Amino acid sequence: MSRISILTERDLRSIVHLDNSAVDCVERAFAALATKAVAMPPILRLDIPEFRGEVDVKTAYVPGFDGFAIKVSPGFFDNPKLGLPSLNGLMILFSARTGLVEALLLDNGYLTDVRTAAAGAVAARHLSREDSSVAAIFGAGMQAHLQLRALMLVRPLKSAHIWARDPAKARKLAGDFTREYGIEVAAMADPREAVRIADIIVTTTPAEEPVLLADWLEPGQHLTAMGSDAEHKNEIDPAVFTMARYVADRITQTRILGELHHAIEAGTVAADQQFDELGAVVAGKAPGRTSAEDITFADLTGTGVQDTAIANLAFSRAREAGYGQTIDNKIDKGDAA
Amino acid sequence: MSRISILTERDLRSIVHLDNSAVDCVERAFAALATKAVAMPPILRLDIPEFRGEVDVKTAYVPGFDGFAIKVSPGFFDNPKLGLPSLNGLMILFSARTGLVEALLLDNGYLTDVRTAAAGAVAARHLSREDSSVAAIFGAGMQAHLQLRALMLVRPLKSAHIWARDPAKARKLAGDFTREYGIEVAAMADPREAVRIADIIVTTTPAEEPVLLADWLEPGQHLTAMGSDAEHKNEIDPAVFTMARYVADRITQTRILGELHHAIEAGTVAADQQFDELGAVVAGKAPGRTSAEDITFADLTGTGVQDTAIANLAFSRAREAGYGQTIDNKIDKGDAA
Repeated sequence: MSRISILTERDLRSIVHLDNSAVDCVERAFAALATKAVAMPPILRLDIPEFRGEVDVKTAYVPGFDGFAIKVSPGFFDNPKLGLPSLNGLMILFSARTGLVEALLLDNGYLTDVRTAAAGAVAARHLSREDSSVAAIFGAGMQAHLQLRALMLVRPLKSAHIWARDPAKARKLAGDFTREYGIEVAAMADPREAVRIADIIVTTTPAEEPVLLADWLEPGQHLTAMGSDAEHKNEIDPAVFTMARYVADRITQTRILGELHHAIEAGTVAADQQFDELGAVVAGKAPGRTSAEDITFADLTGTGVQDTAIANLAFSRAREAGYGQTIDNKIDKGDAA
Repeated sequence: MSRISILTERDLRSIVHLDNSAVDCVERAFAALATKAVAMPPILRLDIPEFRGEVDVKTAYVPGFDGFAIKVSPGFFDNPKLGLPSLNGLMILFSARTGLVEALLLDNGYLTDVRTAAAGAVAARHLSREDSSVAAIFGAGMQAHLQLRALMLVRPLKSAHIWARDPAKARKLAGDFTREYGIEVAAMADPREAVRIADIIVTTTPAEEPVLLADWLEPGQHLTAMGSDAEHKNEIDPAVFTMARYVADRITQTRILGELHHAIEAGTVAADQQFDELGAVVAGKAPGRTSAEDITFADLTGTGVQDTAIANLAFSRAREAGYGQTIDNKIDKGDAA
């Protein structure tokens, strides 16, 4: 008999939050990527153009975590016409020792939101100046909100600027955030102005042309680009590669899906140029920021190790708190069909 | 609110069987592969050598089926020491229109057993002589049993021979099968003898060196090899390629995982030689058997379209019969973490 825990989105929202535990567990997964025999195959991608659907499957085995997650992320872009969200998905947690299913995490993408923002915090913790107090966020969606909160966990933020293509959304996020967290957040009409005195800039847009130009950057700034997770997305001016210290979450992914991809196409970077990964910086195997004047640049495309980390956190929290339903699934090997 | 059906292995064993419906639905999926815009990405593979574990993820979108399945098949080969089966797994059925999870099929590999045997029936239906009455099965495991039953669904079998490396297992399967299905089944000590007067031969072993030699084959026979699903497995003498009409379940897979892979290595076949796929034969777009003397050879490595077919069948049966538990999973988009 195999026992499987089933956790709904509501369960998961009750037990997992964007907090220091989430950031620490994602940080541990990045460190493992640089120091242990992590197995992380390329992303499996299924396209269903008939319904404007695309599905990504990510996974990673991370030594030191009891389970490995397989995450399925469907995006169906006609869903809003049906009153449904575009993005959904679930994670399945398997025992790394036996391959048996331990838990079905029916998160509808919630755990992805958390682990994505947590990676932003990890990048800022290891690459931004410790005294960073002003943030600039590009975009006004869920990740804009979460990335700003993630920065607050690791740096003494006093204020933030929001720029978004839709100024009304930027104003709403600024107002909501100030009310909820008490720091001064202003919506800016001019993206260049938003960046000007920021210590940390995070871009969270689905842009297909650069929204941040190299000219605008100033010494000492840290930039995290997390909007691009597909070949055609591009937030950052390729010229930034000539002035910044670049760190990938996973170089094999950013060469295909991230900002690096576009810099290679633009000829700013050679196709085979080597860069450090965030995990190596976290583990102390590669330098992070080397002076207060460095411009640092983290390119985050989202990795299976983050999914495995957050799924393990969710499952251990669920067990402690007694959350979720249990299914007893008899294993009946040996019987014919 | 999204409603998700959860079906246990026991539920699935009650509603899905190796019968004509299963064969027909798998046949329909193969036909779609040759005639419609099927999307079937390469298999995702995760290895966990620390625990002798390997995980395959297969998927396919097949136009004409309401849902697409993502199947996760873990194989952990130290499990028997812990009293657990090596092979497990589940399928997740998603709506092809919205990407929402419809059902979790906790089958522990049962549906894979059924769809694999069903593919053997499809191959025999389209490639073996209609009057085939004698079968030879290599191997004495679950698929040996199921492949023989599958042949009975599509051809007027009167008798069968079983050869297996372990003669005791071959004798047991022969006795059990005769008792259960009333056809004459004999265990054979000599594989060549097993093949001699057979009309259809199915190899179901995990062999890593050929167990069936080209010399043994006779005009008019049909051969299905379904044991190889990994680079190092090889059941069939590469010389068979010089005398048989070869059909792949999916040529891109058999070039890497199937018998074709070893024929290319042996130099019997050119690396870029083209062959027809089973779906094209099913759809009438490629010839199958052209005379009573042809030797035909189907190489089955297992495809995502079969998983999508059987998962749709299981879900529609479950709905009709009112099987399974339902989870209400609130979709809570818009709330921050």
